[in-house]
Amino acid sequence: MKRIVKKKAPLAVGIVMGSISDAGVIAETENLLKKFGLSYKKTVASAHRSPDLVKQFIRQCEAQGAKVFIAAAGGAAALPGVVAAETSKPVIGIPIESALLGLDSLLSIVQMPGGVPVATVAVGKAGAKNAAILAAQIIATSNARLAQVLISYKKEQREKVIADAKKLQGLPS
Amino acid sequence: MKRIVKKKAPLAVGIVMGSISDAGVIAETENLLKKFGLSYKKTVASAHRSPDLVKQFIRQCEAQGAKVFIAAAGGAAALPGVVAAETSKPVIGIPIESALLGLDSLLSIVQMPGGVPVATVAVGKAGAKNAAILAAQIIATSNARLAQVLISYKKEQREKVIADAKKLQGLPS
Amino acid sequence: MKRIVKKKAPLAVGIVMGSISDAGVIAETENLLKKFGLSYKKTVASAHRSPDLVKQFIRQCEAQGAKVFIAAAGGAAALPGVVAAETSKPVIGIPIESALLGLDSLLSIVQMPGGVPVATVAVGKAGAKNAAILAAQIIATSNARLAQVLISYKKEQREKVIADAKKLQGLPS
Amino acid sequence: MKRIVKKKAPLAVGIVMGSISDAGVIAETENLLKKFGLSYKKTVASAHRSPDLVKQFIRQCEAQGAKVFIAAAGGAAALPGVVAAETSKPVIGIPIESALLGLDSLLSIVQMPGGVPVATVAVGKAGAKNAAILAAQIIATSNARLAQVLISYKKEQREKVIADAKKLQGLPS
Amino acid sequence: MKRIVKKKAPLAVGIVMGSISDAGVIAETENLLKKFGLSYKKTVASAHRSPDLVKQFIRQCEAQGAKVFIAAAGGAAALPGVVAAETSKPVIGIPIESALLGLDSLLSIVQMPGGVPVATVAVGKAGAKNAAILAAQIIATSNARLAQVLISYKKEQREKVIADAKKLQGLPS
Amino acid sequence: MKRIVKKKAPLAVGIVMGSISDAGVIAETENLLKKFGLSYKKTVASAHRSPDLVKQFIRQCEAQGAKVFIAAAGGAAALPGVVAAETSKPVIGIPIESALLGLDSLLSIVQMPGGVPVATVAVGKAGAKNAAILAAQIIATSNARLAQVLISYKKEQREKVIADAKKLQGLPS
Amino acid sequence: MKRIVKKKAPLAVGIVMGSISDAGVIAETENLLKKFGLSYKKTVASAHRSPDLVKQFIRQCEAQGAKVFIAAAGGAAALPGVVAAETSKPVIGIPIESALLGLDSLLSIVQMPGGVPVATVAVGKAGAKNAAILAAQIIATSNARLAQVLISYKKEQREKVIADAKKLQGLPS
Amino acid sequence: MKRIVKKKAPLAVGIVMGSISDAGVIAETENLLKKFGLSYKKTVASAHRSPDLVKQFIRQCEAQGAKVFIAAAGGAAALPGVVAAETSKPVIGIPIESALLGLDSLLSIVQMPGGVPVATVAVGKAGAKNAAILAAQIIATSNARLAQVLISYKKEQREKVIADAKKLQGLPS
Repeated sequence: MKRIVKKKAPLAVGIVMGSISDAGVIAETENLLKKFGLSYKKTVASAHRSPDLVKQFIRQCEAQGAKVFIAAAGGAAALPGVVAAETSKPVIGIPIESALLGLDSLLSIVQMPGGVPVATVAVGKAGAKNAAILAAQIIATSNARLAQVLISYKKEQREKVIADAKKLQGLPS
Repeated sequence: MKRIVKKKAPLAVGIVMGSISDAGVIAETENLLKKFGLSYKKTVASAHRSPDLVKQFIRQCEAQGAKVFIAAAGGAAALPGVVAAETSKPVIGIPIESALLGLDSLLSIVQMPGGVPVATVAVGKAGAKNAAILAAQIIATSNARLAQVLISYKKEQREKVIADAKKLQGLPS
Repeated sequence: MKRIVKKKAPLAVGIVMGSISDAGVIAETENLLKKFGLSYKKTVASAHRSPDLVKQFIRQCEAQGAKVFIAAAGGAAALPGVVAAETSKPVIGIPIESALLGLDSLLSIVQMPGGVPVATVAVGKAGAKNAAILAAQIIATSNARLAQVLISYKKEQREKVIADAKKLQGLPS
Repeated sequence: MKRIVKKKAPLAVGIVMGSISDAGVIAETENLLKKFGLSYKKTVASAHRSPDLVKQFIRQCEAQGAKVFIAAAGGAAALPGVVAAETSKPVIGIPIESALLGLDSLLSIVQMPGGVPVATVAVGKAGAKNAAILAAQIIATSNARLAQVLISYKKEQREKVIADAKKLQGLPS
Repeated sequence: MKRIVKKKAPLAVGIVMGSISDAGVIAETENLLKKFGLSYKKTVASAHRSPDLVKQFIRQCEAQGAKVFIAAAGGAAALPGVVAAETSKPVIGIPIESALLGLDSLLSIVQMPGGVPVATVAVGKAGAKNAAILAAQIIATSNARLAQVLISYKKEQREKVIADAKKLQGLPS
Repeated sequence: MKRIVKKKAPLAVGIVMGSISDAGVIAETENLLKKFGLSYKKTVASAHRSPDLVKQFIRQCEAQGAKVFIAAAGGAAALPGVVAAETSKPVIGIPIESALLGLDSLLSIVQMPGGVPVATVAVGKAGAKNAAILAAQIIATSNARLAQVLISYKKEQREKVIADAKKLQGLPS
Repeated sequence: MKRIVKKKAPLAVGIVMGSISDAGVIAETENLLKKFGLSYKKTVASAHRSPDLVKQFIRQCEAQGAKVFIAAAGGAAALPGVVAAETSKPVIGIPIESALLGLDSLLSIVQMPGGVPVATVAVGKAGAKNAAILAAQIIATSNARLAQVLISYKKEQREKVIADAKKLQGLPS
Repeated sequence: MKRIVKKKAPLAVGIVMGSISDAGVIAETENLLKKFGLSYKKTVASAHRSPDLVKQFIRQCEAQGAKVFIAAAGGAAALPGVVAAETSKPVIGIPIESALLGLDSLLSIVQMPGGVPVATVAVGKAGAKNAAILAAQIIATSNARLAQVLISYKKEQREKVIADAKKLQGLPS
């Protein structure tokens, strides 16, 4: 397991993906967590092929102070719900694209029964980015510095839209 | 936990449902298992609200010789896959009807990743009946008496169709 | 606007629903927030019929210290995304059932573009309950007492499953 | 912001797209507006990343006399509805293709609540062409010259079908 | 055929429904057209059972000055497209609910080929209301009085939301 | 318009496609009609862009004795229903693949109201082949020679399956 | 098996339904076949529970001169395709409504592989009516009297629309 | 027909595919059956183009002692259900991907009526792998050696996940 950013900071986010083939999508999550200065651990652990490892990873992350979990899976995507079953921390679920376009992944993640929420984001890379932002928003509810970072990030996005508008209109940016 | 039919017979089937509200659908399964003379244990155990109980029930059933598992769940129906993660016995999954018509339940159960099958049957009561028949077919692969019972059951169904045809045509059955 | 629980406590959650017809579903959210001792404000404010009121409600809630927003809407359910556009706080989206079963509501809420997450929960009442729990989980990342409450709630749910299992098996609970 | 066709003509159409990646699709709209001699302004402005710019663009267009708005977006496509919330002019919504084939975009745009219509056209390039024609049809309700242009355009299309029929049959066109 | 509001005013809107069973939904359209002071003619005329009558109704309405058409149909809902084939006026399509929830109606109406737009609104009664508002918005592009009526209507809706918010919060309205 | 096979034979089948881009799919239909010795006329004629030409083509084909019509279209595929509205001959509808996979085309064609059937076949090339076979089956109800041809064709297909089975098993065919 | 209308006439249509619960829907088919003076035989015979009876019924009907088959089934609706596998006569498939709205039934019937068509009509009662009309249209390709009956029926439907239009407009019919 | 693995062992599994184009997907099934030391016969036999061959293959396999059948088909995928109609052995159905993503194949296979189960697995290659595992699990209910093989296979998969996790984390495996 890999620790990122600063050595002594308690762990912020634990990331589980159901298959190593999801790593490309999760790179979007990692890039943004790094940008926000949030430490994370990541692993591959399957709800169906290694359920004990899922549980073990959650326990390790919690012991290191993890505040949020992110779980990504495709198809019959049980992983985010299985993570949510094992922790009382917020769990963010990313539906991975599949042969059925990720509609199966999405429904498997979002339609959780009353009592055990999974905070579901969009299918694929947009969702992977948003998982990082949502994790940061959650941690920022008690971290004023991070809250400022997110306000700046929101402004950055707005400025990016303005730049795109100028580009579209053939104006100098 | 309840043992049915004969006292000393090893357990044939373990049935898990994700919610007590599924009991009405599962009654269809129970009726047919009884008809086929197959012993079963049943419980409510949620993949999301009591994952340890799912595992514990599987271990108990296996210790008593269970040959097949049946798992029923609706919505983000992780239960059948979670059962399949914990056993090498065949697992039959019944998708329960939901606000999204059970399409979410179906996709959550059938779209399992390569390596961990769930034998999925139809949404709702038709599936619940078929789960019992499929369990019997599996056990009958090494039980000649049960194989005969299933051949008779197939004939019975054919005769029921003939009776329905006569009824439709206004003929005496 | 209504303040609940204790007078001086800063506001925990702001709830916006797109139509007063969503109030019955949102009652599930309110019951659980009360159980968890979380203060909330609620309003009706439509992304399409009163966009300025949405913004104004967010500003008021933020001024009172709101840490999380919950937004519920059906059909072309823009409200949760519009709330997320106006705040850097975590926004939880509840898809309300519709003539298209809430599939339109779900997709309108969950498929947010990269940059602006909405933490989407299940369609209808299950989602409304989970919105409250997710809000509590978020606040509990910096509130040890609430974290304990959620651990207890998780145990309660497990015990409810055990009681249901006994009931199913005709045993005394 | 760019003014097209003649300098002094009041603005006819305001076009907003949610992302610069939609520009290729919107080119179909622009080509037809030019063919019909209709002036337009276009911008990128996101309902989620720059809501104030959406409002500002609408106000600018209205000040210049815009009679119709066209808004294009994909995924959780709130933009057309958000435009419709800010103006009493007719708003045409173009669902952009997405990983879910644009079904999410379509439902997010067309399923508007009673009170705030969005005139929705087909997903993708066919819709982008039709948005231009619909805008022209709207303006032509009080512009006899443009009404004639549209009648000619209808004839052109019919003649194109006749030419295609001849081509199919191997006849000289 | 029925003329409404004032005797000498030219006709504003022509309404065609595919079946008399759609009349209940269309009543929503009629109520709003009356509120906006817009004259209309209505008929039942099926694209599949009486195509000549559809054409004849369009010609009559156009002769009386109709500026907009509204067409409602369910299932394989060809009617709005068939109306659009026969006129260069804007055509608004209302998908009627069906055994497939109106998804068939919606796709049959909205997915028009490039060249022949139908301005599609939501499935069922919300769509029927919005068809009237959209028709009014179209006519208002050259009718300052009606434009004022629509601005007032927008305010009315906003006030209705405020009243609902007060009602929700138990405040006097 | 092109007459195929023998000069004096009355016309068997009239084929209309909504767009020349459908010609590749319709080639499958033509190949089989030729194989069955059935004469046909084909044209491009759009329900939305040239409704009068659709009607005119039907009248021409009927005058030449056409017994069956085949109509192919994609998206809001009104064409087969519009053909069915104009003739009492059997009409076969082929849904063409679209950006929505042809699901829109399929529903637009198959969900006809009671009173006006369209005999719908599968989406795309499989449907195009089957349209030819179905047309031949219809004509064969009063043509014993053609009925024999179809019986032979059925045998051919069975033999093709046997050859494929041998190929699969590495046996000489 | 029941013969209807005239004693000596050869059989026109063979109707198979997969379950006696489909009889209510098929009553719509029967009423229209009687109206058109077409003899028919009907039975219940399941592709899954009594495949030999399906084949036997087809052979009997063919021996009596049946020109068309109608097959109705719901869910995994194999029946129409299985009938088509056994005969070279035209086979009309009626998808019966199901817990998944009949979408499963529709796709199971319409998506036949190239080589074996099923002429699919709408889901439920509209389809059941249209199956009768389509059967009549097929038989009428070689029966001038029946062709006249169908032309009259088309007129009747048009007149019904006119009557409905008058009723809608409050005019005397 | 081809016998694999050992000469004298009774046949374990009969595999039918609806088209030779499914052979690539079925290769996944074959690889795993070989790994598990299970003999199998395979053929191409279509429910629609060669129903008698389906029946004949089942009879041959049963005569050689087959314990389980695997049937793969796409589109209106009747084959698995037709196999289930002819045998009392367990039947596993693999939905093949199609132009409708395999959603048609899936629904055609899984939605079997009460009385005749098909054990449905995931669409495409994941399903093809799981069909082999499920077949092995079924046979292992009375074969202790095979049961051990499956337990080892489960461990192998878990170890593969561990190796993937190390690879992801840049650790030596």
